[in-house]
Amino acid sequence: MSTETQTWQTLWTNVNLATMTEGAKGYASIENGAIAIANGKIAWLGTKAELPSFDEEKVQVIDGKGAWLTPGLVDCHTHIVYGGNRANEFEMRLEGKSYEEIANAGGGIVSTVKATRAASETELFNSALKRLSTLHQQGVTTIEIKSGYGLDTVNEIKMLNVAKKLGHTLPVTVLKTFLGAHALPVEYKDRADEYIDLVCEEMIPKISAKNLADAVDVFCEGIGFSLAQTEKVFSAAKAHDLPIKIHAEQLSNLGGTELAAQYQALSSDHIEFLDEAGIKAMKAADMTAVLLPGAFYFLRETQLPPMDLLRKHGVSMAIATDANPGSSPINSLQLMLNMACTLFRLTPAEALAGVTCHGAKALGLSTSKGQLAVGFDADIACWDIEQPAELCYQFGVNPLTHLMSAGKIVI
Amino acid sequence: MSTETQTWQTLWTNVNLATMTEGAKGYASIENGAIAIANGKIAWLGTKAELPSFDEEKVQVIDGKGAWLTPGLVDCHTHIVYGGNRANEFEMRLEGKSYEEIANAGGGIVSTVKATRAASETELFNSALKRLSTLHQQGVTTIEIKSGYGLDTVNEIKMLNVAKKLGHTLPVTVLKTFLGAHALPVEYKDRADEYIDLVCEEMIPKISAKNLADAVDVFCEGIGFSLAQTEKVFSAAKAHDLPIKIHAEQLSNLGGTELAAQYQALSSDHIEFLDEAGIKAMKAADMTAVLLPGAFYFLRETQLPPMDLLRKHGVSMAIATDANPGSSPINSLQLMLNMACTLFRLTPAEALAGVTCHGAKALGLSTSKGQLAVGFDADIACWDIEQPAELCYQFGVNPLTHLMSAGKIVI
Ligand SMILES: [Zn+2]
Ligand SMILES: [Zn+2]
Repeated sequence: MSTETQTWQTLWTNVNLATMTEGAKGYASIENGAIAIANGKIAWLGTKAELPSFDEEKVQVIDGKGAWLTPGLVDCHTHIVYGGNRANEFEMRLEGKSYEEIANAGGGIVSTVKATRAASETELFNSALKRLSTLHQQGVTTIEIKSGYGLDTVNEIKMLNVAKKLGHTLPVTVLKTFLGAHALPVEYKDRADEYIDLVCEEMIPKISAKNLADAVDVFCEGIGFSLAQTEKVFSAAKAHDLPIKIHAEQLSNLGGTELAAQYQALSSDHIEFLDEAGIKAMKAADMTAVLLPGAFYFLRETQLPPMDLLRKHGVSMAIATDANPGSSPINSLQLMLNMACTLFRLTPAEALAGVTCHGAKALGLSTSKGQLAVGFDADIACWDIEQPAELCYQFGVNPLTHLMSAGKIVI
Repeated sequence: MSTETQTWQTLWTNVNLATMTEGAKGYASIENGAIAIANGKIAWLGTKAELPSFDEEKVQVIDGKGAWLTPGLVDCHTHIVYGGNRANEFEMRLEGKSYEEIANAGGGIVSTVKATRAASETELFNSALKRLSTLHQQGVTTIEIKSGYGLDTVNEIKMLNVAKKLGHTLPVTVLKTFLGAHALPVEYKDRADEYIDLVCEEMIPKISAKNLADAVDVFCEGIGFSLAQTEKVFSAAKAHDLPIKIHAEQLSNLGGTELAAQYQALSSDHIEFLDEAGIKAMKAADMTAVLLPGAFYFLRETQLPPMDLLRKHGVSMAIATDANPGSSPINSLQLMLNMACTLFRLTPAEALAGVTCHGAKALGLSTSKGQLAVGFDADIACWDIEQPAELCYQFGVNPLTHLMSAGKIVI
């Protein structure tokens, strides 16, 4: 126990801590604990019995009344900036309309690209703010937001500017990912290689120069971009010192994950069809597997991600919303906790690690976010629950009572 | 157009109405419409062009600014009053613990009965109020709440009293259903017939005398009660003039639905395994089929309810949360709209009818709730959407902007 007087700003007492320390088993819990904040960082944590002396007149003490604290949640894969919605297409499909009728009515990602290009930056900001605010009210303090519905230089930059502005508006850390290689824009029909050249030679340099991307992502799939095209984008990203991520092995096993591993990618996302060789490559490159149960649910997929192999090889599993208008119009990370358990059979502790320490790792933030540990950012969620598993088991009543971001109570 | 001056209290203008008229196709929409309220009832509705003259000084006019109005939502099947939760059991199962280990740790409905009996009326009220409040904030103005975790006279009455008090606390119409025949309490092990005698000879008469039930329900299933036991309960209910409902054909086809039809039941609920004969019996008795996608999802069922046969025979389909701690700890009727479409392939119009006119019909309220029609209760939800299908397509951002209950704006 320290004998010098501590210079903290805030101290939570009478709390249980699910510290979610990377590599620890389960929740790495400290029951009947306390946690202290100084300068926006976690300065001390431990059991109440171990609490050092502190200046009671200078420290704001919050009585948690037996609540549980977790790291603020991390949603490490989203597409929440977009124009329009696809309710019409959803309805037509359920009414039994044919693929042609839906295409003629302007369905598919094309419609979102059209609406996103047509929307002003303010319109995009306002609709995305509602989505981010909803996630924030569920405990999210860090989010990744991808571009990928502009598909031209101006509109990709517009999307990334909106993402940047969102991070300046709410007390949420926003990481921006450039996903120009999300889909082929109609004006490049049958000219995918030319579009990839545009992505590599114009978009990445400009976006990098404007500091508008924290990472570069590619949708590598039969209906997306080929391995060779993906590699071109990765090379361009590396040339600009940008970390990479990949949408891979969602519908088939093309080898995108192994390619990404060669480029030391942060994560490979979806990966329902990934094989053991790909998983070994992920492990060797210390990549994170990002599992997206919302898209699995909404698309009524049946091929489960290879959880047992990921566990066997010790690959970190993150969980995210993939919130997007086409395949996961579901804006709730709390629901993803339940779906990760119910659909993917993760344990509640695995699911919670997926939206804390492993979510942070998928964003390259494994030393600052996603854990309750000394030196980490004081992003802390306070929950009215009796045990951490409740966060995964039940859905609907929001148990969040307080949220701290960078040491400040924001909810 | 009327020439006399109207004596309304409130008028919504500049709104689109999804009237959800029973038997009409789709949403029975009126675009660019208006709707007037007098004495808590809908007094007039139509297009703005048809609006009669009214005294502008006496009528509160609400400019809907192009929003959509629907009937207030009806959640016609819930078990939101209970003690404890089953997060521990959920976690143990996902951690691969054996059935015996879970049973030894006190899992299953037994644990909920124990916690419910141990809880005070105030404790039960406080936890259920959070659940009801969450549903209310999503647009629910009518809810059914079942007993069934007391399983003795005192505790069944305690649960129904809590349900009654909930309806006096929030502006939500609460219908109370007595579900004493939910499970066999441990003290009646191997004496199910004796327990049914207690239900019929003591509980139903006492609860009826106290006016604590609007209906009587039975869980008719291999793991619940037999057909003969179910019929005994139905007879006792009829003797006390109480309408009946049934949990039937969820795990097997025992014939509970046909039996219920003989007793002019309001609804048969779950019905994954119901056959065409049962569906014809439902139609003949004008029963409603209550589909519960939350339990289907949470239990990872694979047998879909017979939607096509229900459509073929014109049986009304309601949708409800079945919110309960064991098989559907999911307290969101908005999510059920998405799950009804995604998992059961209902059209958005069918799903919305399921939580409006057909939900009301399942509660015997088909002439007062669940439709925007003259003479119906002015329970009205106002949504920031461009088309009704958005209520089913997206989930997370709550589009509810206002809620009217019995003619008063309550949200
Ligand atoms: Zn994605
Ligand atoms: Zn039920």
